[in-house]
Amino acid sequence: MKKWYEDERIDKDVVISSRIRLARNIKKYPFSTILQKSDIDKLINEVKDSIINDSNVIGNSFEFIKFDDLSNIDKYSMVENHTVSNDIIKKNDSAALIKNDDSASILINEEDHIRIQSVSIGNDINSAWEFANNIDNLIEERIEYAFDKDFGYLTSCITNTGTGLRASFMIHIPMIEMSGNLANISRAIGKFGMTMRGIYGEGSESLGGIYQISNQITLGKSEKEIIEALKSVTNQIIEQEKELRNNVIKNNSAKFEDKIYRSYGILCSCRQISSKEAMKLLSDIRLGFMTGILKFNKPEKNIYNIMMNVQPGNLIKLCGKNLNESERDIERAKYLNEQLRKF
Amino acid sequence: MKKWYEDERIDKDVVISSRIRLARNIKKYPFSTILQKSDIDKLINEVKDSIINDSNVIGNSFEFIKFDDLSNIDKYSMVENHTVSNDIIKKNDSAALIKNDDSASILINEEDHIRIQSVSIGNDINSAWEFANNIDNLIEERIEYAFDKDFGYLTSCITNTGTGLRASFMIHIPMIEMSGNLANISRAIGKFGMTMRGIYGEGSESLGGIYQISNQITLGKSEKEIIEALKSVTNQIIEQEKELRNNVIKNNSAKFEDKIYRSYGILCSCRQISSKEAMKLLSDIRLGFMTGILKFNKPEKNIYNIMMNVQPGNLIKLCGKNLNESERDIERAKYLNEQLRKF
Repeated sequence: MKKWYEDERIDKDVVISSRIRLARNIKKYPFSTILQKSDIDKLINEVKDSIINDSNVIGNSFEFIKFDDLSNIDKYSMVENHTVSNDIIKKNDSAALIKNDDSASILINEEDHIRIQSVSIGNDINSAWEFANNIDNLIEERIEYAFDKDFGYLTSCITNTGTGLRASFMIHIPMIEMSGNLANISRAIGKFGMTMRGIYGEGSESLGGIYQISNQITLGKSEKEIIEALKSVTNQIIEQEKELRNNVIKNNSAKFEDKIYRSYGILCSCRQISSKEAMKLLSDIRLGFMTGILKFNKPEKNIYNIMMNVQPGNLIKLCGKNLNESERDIERAKYLNEQLRKF
Repeated sequence: MKKWYEDERIDKDVVISSRIRLARNIKKYPFSTILQKSDIDKLINEVKDSIINDSNVIGNSFEFIKFDDLSNIDKYSMVENHTVSNDIIKKNDSAALIKNDDSASILINEEDHIRIQSVSIGNDINSAWEFANNIDNLIEERIEYAFDKDFGYLTSCITNTGTGLRASFMIHIPMIEMSGNLANISRAIGKFGMTMRGIYGEGSESLGGIYQISNQITLGKSEKEIIEALKSVTNQIIEQEKELRNNVIKNNSAKFEDKIYRSYGILCSCRQISSKEAMKLLSDIRLGFMTGILKFNKPEKNIYNIMMNVQPGNLIKLCGKNLNESERDIERAKYLNEQLRKF
């Protein structure tokens, strides 16, 4: 089964992906922080059964996993691909249902009892919303959620109470990053109840010019309002990024082209490279493709997927053996040489 | 006719080339600084006739040129290839006899009436000396030199009086340069009456890790003594360079290899590049070949020749049209992409 992030349509837009996350809790159990082992087992089985059962087809495309059964490498790899959260892999007795193309997951016993996640390629948050909403309804057919008619969905952390919704776009904005205007934008969107973070979420540093923009407020607004407001702000950022790209092509094309081709040359030839530098150079390549500066023969290209594959966990999985940091730098260079020379 | 610097044996050694220069003046004329036009014409013809005449075969391999007849680009190109000095192209009424492979030249009416230059590939100063000495004898058969039994050959500048000899090695010592030990070496050889300069002689900055080491003292020692002393000092520098290369391969091989391959990647992919940066990266490539780090399919490689060709004059000649600095940077990148991708 091809994963959603292996799809080459990913490199078509400033927006890499659109994502919906719904936080839900089951009425009859206390929140996960104080949940007893026996209740956790029941919780996991109930959520599992609500999806994987004879009366719905969608369950066939989900696989059930328990995180305690997985190797650390498998866990890190899932986080690097944004299939599951960083929090759940650190928690004992946690489980998940993962869609076969990794485009959706239902995390069980994370911060909340249930976290439904759905992602779609490019600037298409409506699809992600529809899928998450379907899963939400499916679970609700069998499980009574903790819901308050005034507050909405009740959650372990108060910031998620209400809709329990976090909508987000993963955007590639290297030109805005280079312009030095990022801090201003970040401050401005904060006033609209939104936030901007690096590719790996809270506290993560920016890598490869990729940022996640998402709502912070979940209460007092409908899901539709939250999503529409986020779309509107994101579209403005996209326009700004595109304008900067057009300007550099119009006014400083030779230098811009040189920068991008040098990044290509280094990726084809380096013998060791950190993931941070690899992300930076791959960001140049993605920018090169999108601006038409790079024109290569091979049509199926997916720089975002290469970006994911150079992360430590994915790289170790790819090599099939444990590697320390300097070994990874060497294997990462080999992988990049091979991938980039294909173009 | 293949030029000496197009020979691929040039990339075999730390020493790129060995060079001899003899300064001579004709007894019956005043020094060039005060020479009248009518005497200059006579001087030029006499020297020309001493080489190109019916009684010697060697004259057939020399071409006579007058610098006033040449374009600026042709003149710069000859300086960049070290075929003639930077001084002679700036002087009116100067001429030269140039050997068809550019390995020898007889400059007429430069600082001295006659400057005989001969170069040989690699660490082989004896060949250069023999050829220059033959030319010297040939001229002396027809022309009486300004010679004093106490002082030796008399020259326009007192520093050349005596043997009139400047022997030099052009050496590629990037590892010594990187080690930061260059200033110490330069000071040390000064005590032996020798000097170290950049690739384009006095006052020129170092480019691509290439230096010229030559004698400063021409008086009070025989030609043989001067050459032997220079050889001995140069051999010590060569050993130091080789030791540094062995050390880096032994102790830091992965990083060293990465640096060299990155330089290769940039040279293959850049879209604009200054001559200074090109020299730096080509120096890495030459070092890569010599240490066995770079192993390419194409056996005929001559990085030194590529280094010469990226100089402004040569590049303009190669492109067949006048180019300003930023146009040159773009054409230089194209030339380098093409040359390096061949390997």
